[in-house]
Parts: sequence; C-alpha cells; structure tokens
Amino acid sequence: MKTKGVRVLGIDPGSSVTGYGIVEECNDQLLHISNGEISVSQKSTFPRSLKRIYNDLQKIILDHSPDVIAVEDLFFHKNVKTALKLGHARGVAILAGVNVGLDVYEYSPMEIKQAVVGYGRAGKDQVQMMVKKLLGLRQITSFDASDALAVAICHIHSAKIKNLLESV
Amino acid sequence: MKTKGVRVLGIDPGSSVTGYGIVEECNDQLLHISNGEISVSQKSTFPRSLKRIYNDLQKIILDHSPDVIAVEDLFFHKNVKTALKLGHARGVAILAGVNVGLDVYEYSPMEIKQAVVGYGRAGKDQVQMMVKKLLGLRQITSFDASDALAVAICHIHSAKIKNLLESV
Repeated sequence: MKTKGVRVLGIDPGSSVTGYGIVEECNDQLLHISNGEISVSQKSTFPRSLKRIYNDLQKIILDHSPDVIAVEDLFFHKNVKTALKLGHARGVAILAGVNVGLDVYEYSPMEIKQAVVGYGRAGKDQVQMMVKKLLGLRQITSFDASDALAVAICHIHSAKIKNLLESV
Repeated sequence: MKTKGVRVLGIDPGSSVTGYGIVEECNDQLLHISNGEISVSQKSTFPRSLKRIYNDLQKIILDHSPDVIAVEDLFFHKNVKTALKLGHARGVAILAGVNVGLDVYEYSPMEIKQAVVGYGRAGKDQVQMMVKKLLGLRQITSFDASDALAVAICHIHSAKIKNLLESV
C-alpha cells in the first residue's frame, strides 16, 4: 500500500535569488516534486522585490500544496548589511508559509549538511551532488535550488528520527 | 479652504516591539492621527511573531487609510544576530504596505533626526520631546512610537522640500 508521507517545501531565501525545492516522502523513499529559483530584478525597488518573493512563494504553495515549510536557520553572517537584507527576504518567505497556515521549521546549516552529506562542513557542490543522488536528478540549475532541496530533505530525515524516538 | 495633505504611516520595526505613528499634513500643519506599539509575546514562535506584526500593520492601514508608508532605512547594526532578526520584522512591515498598493519610503536615522530635531545625532529622548512639541502631544508611551512618528514627520518634510524644488 502506498502511504503518502509529508510533502516539504524547502526554501533558501536570498535578497536577489531565493531557491525553492519540494520533496515528498513516499513509502520511505524521497520523491522529487519541483525545484527552482525566484530571481529578483536588479532594477526593482527593494519593497517590490520582497513582494515578488512573497507572491511567487504563495503561488508555489498553491500549485504544490506542501504540508510544511523548512528554512535554513541563519542567525550568523559575516556582513551586517547582507545579514539585514537577507533577514528581509527570510521574513517574507516565512510569512508566505504562516499566512496560509503552514508550520515553518528551521534548521541550522550544519544540521542540513549533516543530514544530506553526513558531514556538517560540506561545501555547496558536495550538497548539490548528494541532493542529485538522493532524488535521482541529473541536473539542478543552481546552488540556491539544491540548497533548498537539501533543507526539505533535512526536515524529512529529522521528522523520521523524531517519529522513531516517539514510538520507542 | 482646508486642503488635505498626505497621510503618512511611520513604522519603527523591531522583532519584539514595532512602533507605529500616523501623521497627516493639513494646511501646512502637522496633525497627529494615531500612534502605538505592536508587542510580540516572548512565548510566541518567531514565524507567529512575524505574522502578528504583518496582520496588526494591515489592520492599522485598514483603520487609518494612510497614503504612504515611511520606514527607517537601517542598513547598519552593531550586532549581526540582532540585524538579521530586525531584518525579518522590517521585511514583513514593508510587505504589509506594498501588499495593499502603498509606496514605501525609507529614510536614514540621520535624515529623520535632522528633520525632527535639526541635529543628526540627537538621542531618542530629544526626538521624543520634539515629536511631542511638533504634534502637540502631552505623552507618547514609548520610544518605539515616538521614533515611528518621527519617520512620518520626516517624510512630510522631505516631500514638502521635494515639491518646492520641483515647483521652482
């Protein structure tokens, strides 16, 4: 019997490019649903860019009906200006989920890399390679998309472990 | 003849307290409409806090029909973690405006203090004192609210100067 597992929308927010990736757990297998990027025009004003990220994410949620959202928990950054800009994009990405009643889970970069590559300090290329392997994909167009898929996979792993622990 | 000027919603975003203040320019006079704070419960999750800020600001916009929104342009902060959190709150505050078709203007802390106190390095207490004087208010409950009113006043001053320059 096929049992539908959780469908997760992973998001890798950015002020210029926001990656997204949808993964479903099906009969203990990872199933790739969709992935891509929301690119914001450099000519657009910052408020309009935020609106674009929010609207596009809401459309993706409407199209693919994920059960939950997973986002990288990024509370450290080298550059304060970049951190502030990133915070804006992350804020509207989270809002896009909670405004349609979805729970939002946050994972640290280390947790994500550990879940996908098995090594918390893996590089973006290693993460992408493992994501392709785990989901049986030939190509992923960007690191933004593969990072987003990685957060989704991380949530599925994490939820599975949590369920196992609770059933003991 | 009474001429209705622009009605501005000033916002001072924060991850725990977001100040707001509405000021209208009427016959070359500043008219206070409303001010207050949106306080987020420390027990609430971060995604739910963002939703609260967004929903409350949308309600304020619906209740008071401002023409534009003015926010402090804060692209510098000492602490990266605080900057990232603040970015989230600022992102959803801006989104609350653009999602109902309002233009959002940004002013640096220096521009705001210069416009209200006449001195770019004024303290929060000096800003509050001048805001009370300019709007004929006896009391403002917090610096968050007076800072928000100050951004609104700054926008009115700035728009007036721009109009004057354009009419020359």
